[in-house]
Amino acid sequence: VTELVDRLEAQILEASPALARLLSPLGRRAAFPPDIPFQAAQAQGTTFNGTIGQITDGAGRPVPLPSLARGLEGLEVSLRDRALLYSPVPGFPELRASWRRRQRRGVSDDRPSTTPLVTVGLTHGLALVADLFGGEDRPIAVPSPFWGNYRQTFELRTGARIVSAPAYVDGRYNCDAMAQALADEPPGRPAVAILNLPSNPGGYSLTRDERGRVIDSLVAVADQRPLLVVCDDAYAGLVYEEAIPSAPVFWDLVGRHPNLVPVKIDGATKEVSFFGGRVGFVTFPFEPGSEVEAALESKLKCLVRAGVGSPVAASQALLLAALENEDLDSEVEAIRLELGRRYRALRDALAGIDRELVSPLPFNSGCFALLELAARAGVTSEALRRHLLDHHDTGVVAIAPRFVRVALCSVAERSLPELVERLMTGVSELAAR
Amino acid sequence: VTELVDRLEAQILEASPALARLLSPLGRRAAFPPDIPFQAAQAQGTTFNGTIGQITDGAGRPVPLPSLARGLEGLEVSLRDRALLYSPVPGFPELRASWRRRQRRGVSDDRPSTTPLVTVGLTHGLALVADLFGGEDRPIAVPSPFWGNYRQTFELRTGARIVSAPAYVDGRYNCDAMAQALADEPPGRPAVAILNLPSNPGGYSLTRDERGRVIDSLVAVADQRPLLVVCDDAYAGLVYEEAIPSAPVFWDLVGRHPNLVPVKIDGATKEVSFFGGRVGFVTFPFEPGSEVEAALESKLKCLVRAGVGSPVAASQALLLAALENEDLDSEVEAIRLELGRRYRALRDALAGIDRELVSPLPFNSGCFALLELAARAGVTSEALRRHLLDHHDTGVVAIAPRFVRVALCSVAERSLPELVERLMTGVSELAAR
Repeated sequence: VTELVDRLEAQILEASPALARLLSPLGRRAAFPPDIPFQAAQAQGTTFNGTIGQITDGAGRPVPLPSLARGLEGLEVSLRDRALLYSPVPGFPELRASWRRRQRRGVSDDRPSTTPLVTVGLTHGLALVADLFGGEDRPIAVPSPFWGNYRQTFELRTGARIVSAPAYVDGRYNCDAMAQALADEPPGRPAVAILNLPSNPGGYSLTRDERGRVIDSLVAVADQRPLLVVCDDAYAGLVYEEAIPSAPVFWDLVGRHPNLVPVKIDGATKEVSFFGGRVGFVTFPFEPGSEVEAALESKLKCLVRAGVGSPVAASQALLLAALENEDLDSEVEAIRLELGRRYRALRDALAGIDRELVSPLPFNSGCFALLELAARAGVTSEALRRHLLDHHDTGVVAIAPRFVRVALCSVAERSLPELVERLMTGVSELAAR
Repeated sequence: VTELVDRLEAQILEASPALARLLSPLGRRAAFPPDIPFQAAQAQGTTFNGTIGQITDGAGRPVPLPSLARGLEGLEVSLRDRALLYSPVPGFPELRASWRRRQRRGVSDDRPSTTPLVTVGLTHGLALVADLFGGEDRPIAVPSPFWGNYRQTFELRTGARIVSAPAYVDGRYNCDAMAQALADEPPGRPAVAILNLPSNPGGYSLTRDERGRVIDSLVAVADQRPLLVVCDDAYAGLVYEEAIPSAPVFWDLVGRHPNLVPVKIDGATKEVSFFGGRVGFVTFPFEPGSEVEAALESKLKCLVRAGVGSPVAASQALLLAALENEDLDSEVEAIRLELGRRYRALRDALAGIDRELVSPLPFNSGCFALLELAARAGVTSEALRRHLLDHHDTGVVAIAPRFVRVALCSVAERSLPELVERLMTGVSELAAR
């Protein structure tokens, strides 16, 4: 195993010295061991295959319990069979290939990307990246406010250290937030930055001009230190303004600077509205079939197996069937159009509110809008949240100290003006106390 | 959060000082934060609920993509809806209640057990327990040979230290293996033991007499130190000999000694032949509704959220439908009977082999049989595995140095004699070299 670990590290070093320096201690020692899944993969196709601990008919097909298989009746038999058996550790090969084609629509051939590895939803992809590249005292730059779970995934689990700078300054997106967050780190110290666009909780995507400025800012950081940019593309494609580019920033970062390695985390959760399926993907900016791809895949497979055994075959079968359906794109587009209507309803409702009490931060995409309660109103977001629950039959998410997140994705278009009205009534009531 | 962490630790200490001492540093600091899922749970049922980032129709129902939902056509509409949306972090309440009833069939009321928390398959349950109770230098006792993934899950991920003693001595199960493995640890040092019965790779369950001796041995360890006994019940119920008790040993350990805390890891993977679903459960020996249950659940929910977001709703919906079907028990029994036939076919085929070359270790349950190559034959299991792949169209799993695992669960009854014959031919060919 030590030999295998050394070989993987040499392969990563060869392709990207920066990435090798970014590995955490756990990332360094992770390697897919040559045990049962490895041996079972080698034995695939043998007539007398007694390798793998799943119950089959002796010819590789499941022995499905009818009361379980019935729920999957809508899948063709071969996919239903696969839904019931273990998935390969890196995921179904056709699903990985299919998702890769989908990711690369409109992307030029000179931007390499690995065959995406399947994870148990996007959080699992983030956790795997945290395991590989987080660890004790590693700085993780995230513009603030950010999705709170980054703290658990990177900091609590691995001992990394989240560093932050405001995502908005003077009511506009702060393109230098990540560079500012890392400004105090000694030059040369490897760092991680999390780029989540469309953002949660902000619902924000970059304008063309801002996109250039964010990239320049990250490249300047990479002049100073190895930098892993985690592109959390959970909300990819959910963009509602014509002028806003919707292609993931990941592709603009591929090959931009030898010290800057982007990694793409995306998946079916929001892109295909399959929240309950837990299918995500991790993609690196390297050629499929390359040694560095295999080395990273060995490490990821080791951690997938150690943490969850294998990804969810049932959900992969359902997703694969959907991706093979030619209606899928128009179904996804219909969701985007519906969310676009909600976005406009919310934007319009917020246009008329009292800015002395509440400022909407700019939003144009994704699932959320972020509001900032005016300091002078003296209302915390947590007090407002409880007040809205208790007295106005309304739920919002409070982000300390004075941010409020509204999920437009879970409120009907017609209800959004009323939600805004109740929220403003609540703020007024509390401010008047 | 510090306040919450302190409160959880006090609640665990109150119920079980041994368990509090067993917590790892990560286990100590884990606590479900009052962020989005917490706030969304509080907002459930509000008319204007803008808390949660999943796309719904505005009234809590999903906006399913037809090409995705079609695969789940066999589920009734309300379950299909839930399959597409996020699961609560600890799992579907009805599924947890239903699994608990199933676990407790024939168990007396004086053996408390928590409401099981849903995990992404059994490995995830093991990984959560490793996070809570493993950590740097914690001894983890496992009889050898053992399922190799314990090493990744406990040692690689958390820095714990696997200690081992032979599972078989003189061709019989070694009831003192875990005590022997821990014999060199200083008294008072907390330890973890993994009790996997029916075993992998052994396919072994304890006789009534051995069960008593294993329990006595573990109780003697608990006189010396806080001891967490991880009951890996993956193969629960798959027992093929009348004389062998099939109820999980977990229940015999509940309340046996104040220093001995058993935790049950089980799930649908093997028990309901749902390998591809990834539904497992973690259960502690405490009353449902107790403070200690809530404290442990807060820690587990924190780690579930940090690592995978939430468990798989689609698989939970499928499993819940199966559990609600009155045919399920007879379907599960039909699988047990089929595996019993394979067990007898394999046992009979092994009865006639040359013991000078290969000794079958005792087996009576589960999915496997374990064979030991005689030292004097000079054949390693890895050499045999490759030889069988290359020359005999046969796959087995090699466990260093001289163990071979045969998975009877994936070979047809009629093929097992042929598999044994090919295996013996392979051994003879290699031994003759």
